[in-house]
Amino acid sequence: MSLPAEFHEIAKRVNNWGRWGADDEIGTLNLITDEVVREAAATVRSGRRVPLALPLRQDGVQSGMIPGRINPLHAMVQINQELFGPGTVACSDDVVTMGLQAATHWDALTHVSHSGRLYNGRPADTVTAHAGAEFGGIDKARHVVSRGVLLDVARALGKDRLDGSHAVTPEDLEAAEDLAGTRVRAGDVVLVRTGQIQVYLAGDREGYGYPSPGLSVRTPEWFHARDVAAVANDTLTFEIFPPEIEDLWLPVHALDLVEMGMLQGQNWNLEELSTACGESGRYAFLLSAMPEPFVGATGTPVAPAAVL
Amino acid sequence: MSLPAEFHEIAKRVNNWGRWGADDEIGTLNLITDEVVREAAATVRSGRRVPLALPLRQDGVQSGMIPGRINPLHAMVQINQELFGPGTVACSDDVVTMGLQAATHWDALTHVSHSGRLYNGRPADTVTAHAGAEFGGIDKARHVVSRGVLLDVARALGKDRLDGSHAVTPEDLEAAEDLAGTRVRAGDVVLVRTGQIQVYLAGDREGYGYPSPGLSVRTPEWFHARDVAAVANDTLTFEIFPPEIEDLWLPVHALDLVEMGMLQGQNWNLEELSTACGESGRYAFLLSAMPEPFVGATGTPVAPAAVL
Amino acid sequence: MSLPAEFHEIAKRVNNWGRWGADDEIGTLNLITDEVVREAAATVRSGRRVPLALPLRQDGVQSGMIPGRINPLHAMVQINQELFGPGTVACSDDVVTMGLQAATHWDALTHVSHSGRLYNGRPADTVTAHAGAEFGGIDKARHVVSRGVLLDVARALGKDRLDGSHAVTPEDLEAAEDLAGTRVRAGDVVLVRTGQIQVYLAGDREGYGYPSPGLSVRTPEWFHARDVAAVANDTLTFEIFPPEIEDLWLPVHALDLVEMGMLQGQNWNLEELSTACGESGRYAFLLSAMPEPFVGATGTPVAPAAVL
Amino acid sequence: MSLPAEFHEIAKRVNNWGRWGADDEIGTLNLITDEVVREAAATVRSGRRVPLALPLRQDGVQSGMIPGRINPLHAMVQINQELFGPGTVACSDDVVTMGLQAATHWDALTHVSHSGRLYNGRPADTVTAHAGAEFGGIDKARHVVSRGVLLDVARALGKDRLDGSHAVTPEDLEAAEDLAGTRVRAGDVVLVRTGQIQVYLAGDREGYGYPSPGLSVRTPEWFHARDVAAVANDTLTFEIFPPEIEDLWLPVHALDLVEMGMLQGQNWNLEELSTACGESGRYAFLLSAMPEPFVGATGTPVAPAAVL
Repeated sequence: MSLPAEFHEIAKRVNNWGRWGADDEIGTLNLITDEVVREAAATVRSGRRVPLALPLRQDGVQSGMIPGRINPLHAMVQINQELFGPGTVACSDDVVTMGLQAATHWDALTHVSHSGRLYNGRPADTVTAHAGAEFGGIDKARHVVSRGVLLDVARALGKDRLDGSHAVTPEDLEAAEDLAGTRVRAGDVVLVRTGQIQVYLAGDREGYGYPSPGLSVRTPEWFHARDVAAVANDTLTFEIFPPEIEDLWLPVHALDLVEMGMLQGQNWNLEELSTACGESGRYAFLLSAMPEPFVGATGTPVAPAAVL
Repeated sequence: MSLPAEFHEIAKRVNNWGRWGADDEIGTLNLITDEVVREAAATVRSGRRVPLALPLRQDGVQSGMIPGRINPLHAMVQINQELFGPGTVACSDDVVTMGLQAATHWDALTHVSHSGRLYNGRPADTVTAHAGAEFGGIDKARHVVSRGVLLDVARALGKDRLDGSHAVTPEDLEAAEDLAGTRVRAGDVVLVRTGQIQVYLAGDREGYGYPSPGLSVRTPEWFHARDVAAVANDTLTFEIFPPEIEDLWLPVHALDLVEMGMLQGQNWNLEELSTACGESGRYAFLLSAMPEPFVGATGTPVAPAAVL
Repeated sequence: MSLPAEFHEIAKRVNNWGRWGADDEIGTLNLITDEVVREAAATVRSGRRVPLALPLRQDGVQSGMIPGRINPLHAMVQINQELFGPGTVACSDDVVTMGLQAATHWDALTHVSHSGRLYNGRPADTVTAHAGAEFGGIDKARHVVSRGVLLDVARALGKDRLDGSHAVTPEDLEAAEDLAGTRVRAGDVVLVRTGQIQVYLAGDREGYGYPSPGLSVRTPEWFHARDVAAVANDTLTFEIFPPEIEDLWLPVHALDLVEMGMLQGQNWNLEELSTACGESGRYAFLLSAMPEPFVGATGTPVAPAAVL
Repeated sequence: MSLPAEFHEIAKRVNNWGRWGADDEIGTLNLITDEVVREAAATVRSGRRVPLALPLRQDGVQSGMIPGRINPLHAMVQINQELFGPGTVACSDDVVTMGLQAATHWDALTHVSHSGRLYNGRPADTVTAHAGAEFGGIDKARHVVSRGVLLDVARALGKDRLDGSHAVTPEDLEAAEDLAGTRVRAGDVVLVRTGQIQVYLAGDREGYGYPSPGLSVRTPEWFHARDVAAVANDTLTFEIFPPEIEDLWLPVHALDLVEMGMLQGQNWNLEELSTACGESGRYAFLLSAMPEPFVGATGTPVAPAAVL
């Protein structure tokens, strides 16, 4: 079995290998120029900050279906411990074990490979147990502050949330642009709202993951045409799941991460942001979504903030 | 043994219990108003982004002296795994175990207690193994974007880095304000540079931790007078270590976290920021330093960005 | 709410506090004398070894209902890594994160407390996040090799496995003794088979845990009368669950661990052992069930072997 | 670079590939027959049990030199938690994260590979991040109870402990056999005492690991000739370290694990056992050293017991 011709055709059209040099490890993040950031700062009107991360806890979005991707296990290793003797200042300390892709996260460019290749044509086997991703690990993606644009597809289509079988198309994205009253442009970080996270927030972990609306295999070309820096949404799998084309699993991952070199974000809670943008009528903002620089990691939890 | 009268006198002067209501769990973060954030956004000139987190890796700043506070242990649980069959898109996934205070981090208000009390007078025993910090956990501190000000004490005093015995005083902070050409004001997040992190960067973990310059027990009053929202620096212990007053361990922690309810940050790498501020002559910027919302945690890794 | 009078009456009858001195931390393990071990060795006839531990894997018996008690998460940190250069001997290494009570395990005497007390009257608050169980941790129970006796209650009652509502009574244990053709005596480790583990082995984790047969609140007196050293069985909760007496949760734990000071084992796979004992007609054997000596731990995985 | 001819010559002489069939995954453990176990049980005289595991704690033998092999990190997730309401029985639970080879452990046959091969000729790449060691994982080695023989080389040579440069030779092993008054025979588990663990017990972790006495590259042929089932000792690296032959790293690992298919044990504390055997004049005993059955793991902590 191998990936179908249809996939490879799209792949050619969105491929960015070599675009920023043979040694590039950050892909479309190169599109976030200082000018883009200056303009992003200029979008701030109210000063309202909207956090976009889900709480990190053992009762998180993972249902156990994805091997190894465990919800955060938090444990105390000190509780009010008077380390310097009785009556002294007492310390509490804690540890966590978690899957780096378990909660609100960024996928690193190396989170997937296909046909033995990672972004920029690097061999997939440069990811090892010893060093993780020596090339293109999440620790290389250290400057993710840009203009954010909420494409509120659910609202644009007049729905609370999209159906589980809804593949978000370029037309949907443009409908959301119309609602937003702004055009997505080079260097933007695009947040696509489906409303699916409501299913998790209502307590249904299994239903959240499957079936789930998500991005269509047609969207990478649209993001490529707009020269987007990164895309995140409010679903477990990012792309529609199960997939649009039978037996073609995770094509959007392969196109975005491997071919374009574009970061993907998942499990972002866009509900409060939707309300805030709806109230203000403004869907562009300053977005800070800095990866935790885990060396060699193929993903990272992220605590994004939209500043409106 | 108990804390000396001297400590309790300062404690009274900086105490904020009840200032934002009996139920408040975020302390001085209340001082970051929307107006402060708007002004912070207005400081952005160049669009340059400076990340302030150390890389997260097993070879981190912890030397093993603090029980349980382990450096990040990163492990791959999938490496280019063709989860959907041979020839399909392949996935890599990873997990981490780490002390939440191990690397570049925020202390939650509940990281320390004294005399059986946490910030806002809550009993220390509300921190449990079961739930962590039910009150005042780091998950409550979700909006840390504000104006940042670098107080580059090392540079202001004409040094590469401060001596291990140097307690940073209010006078030092004011010298750094003079260098910065700005006054610290309500809602600011202050970053105090000692240069000590250079010791770790040069490969000497033990020397980094001890002896170390850090904030004097006299600084909480200064931060209180200025109504600062949070303070971070580039040392392991935040305050001078070993302490200024014999047998009075961690007084600054107790004053900042318990009495004032002010977040502290440690192990922030301020070297590139020092260079950037020096080059531009501007020491105020937009700072995004969003805590990862670990529920009930007494600290969190953070990946801060200064936007100049 | 507090524990009912009925509980306290039984507690008095089985209490062993002070029996082996005020400093004793191992309780009924004191009953395993060298003579008992010599006799245990003398039971070996065939030399057949039967392992009693479930495989340790992420797909283990824990369903997520018990907070923090996670199934083993195994991860490779080296895979055929040529640490000393290309062409040299290559190493693979791995790490695990797991709940110590997640799989086939021993409860330490300190796994439960009631009325603020642990075994031998020690205060419950001697268990801390800093040191774990300073008194009575599993690391103190280092010599668990003795005569094992399988009380195959399911077989004695003519069933494949007991119903979920079956509380194993002293009469059931005696019926199993009759089947075994041996009397339980001082220092024995008793393995009680209900057959419940079949539910897990058939793939039903939830059904395995609840409802589940298990030991009746009447059994501690029987074990006390026989001066048993330890008891293990093939269920998640050890005692019948939900409990026999409304709102009296975990009474058997409290009686066995706190009052008697007797180790309990759970999630032991007794199926192959049942077959082996049935074939040979002999239900007594040498049992080695050494705790992993986790310092301060309130439980431990164990890999027991019956030698027939 | 590749392994020298000298290595390959020894490899041929000790190779057991195919000896127990092409599908065999346990190697020399096949030599532990029921008869061997019966004879092992018959060695028991006093009933004295000697535990051989080091305590599992954060302050363990690992110094941080071996990437990923972390000492056990123990954390409480419940402390006297009244899960069923106030006044009910209270529970304590804990979790651990640790390197499987960090403490007293068995190496699985798959712990090392050379020339792309594992034991029995299997490809090294059957070890994956996804499944660990699908072939020859430690979960396959489930019946490790046999006759144990202590070869107390330090005592036989009249020393408290061997020098750091002492490679234990076949002649040393035979001197220890003379002291023991027994011959090592098929199916035995041999424990070789160097005394090196005293260095760790005295608080010197670095000195324990390096330089260290250990088994000579000449010993695998001796073990092969005697048809030993497994070998363990009281050092960090098992074989002499640094190695006898320049640039030939870990040859004993490669010969024992890959060629012979013989389990190796490290960091076993043989001090109390040495005393016990010295006192009784008997160096053979029943040994139970059951691996924890971590599925796909390349090693496991073990809590061995010698029964004299």
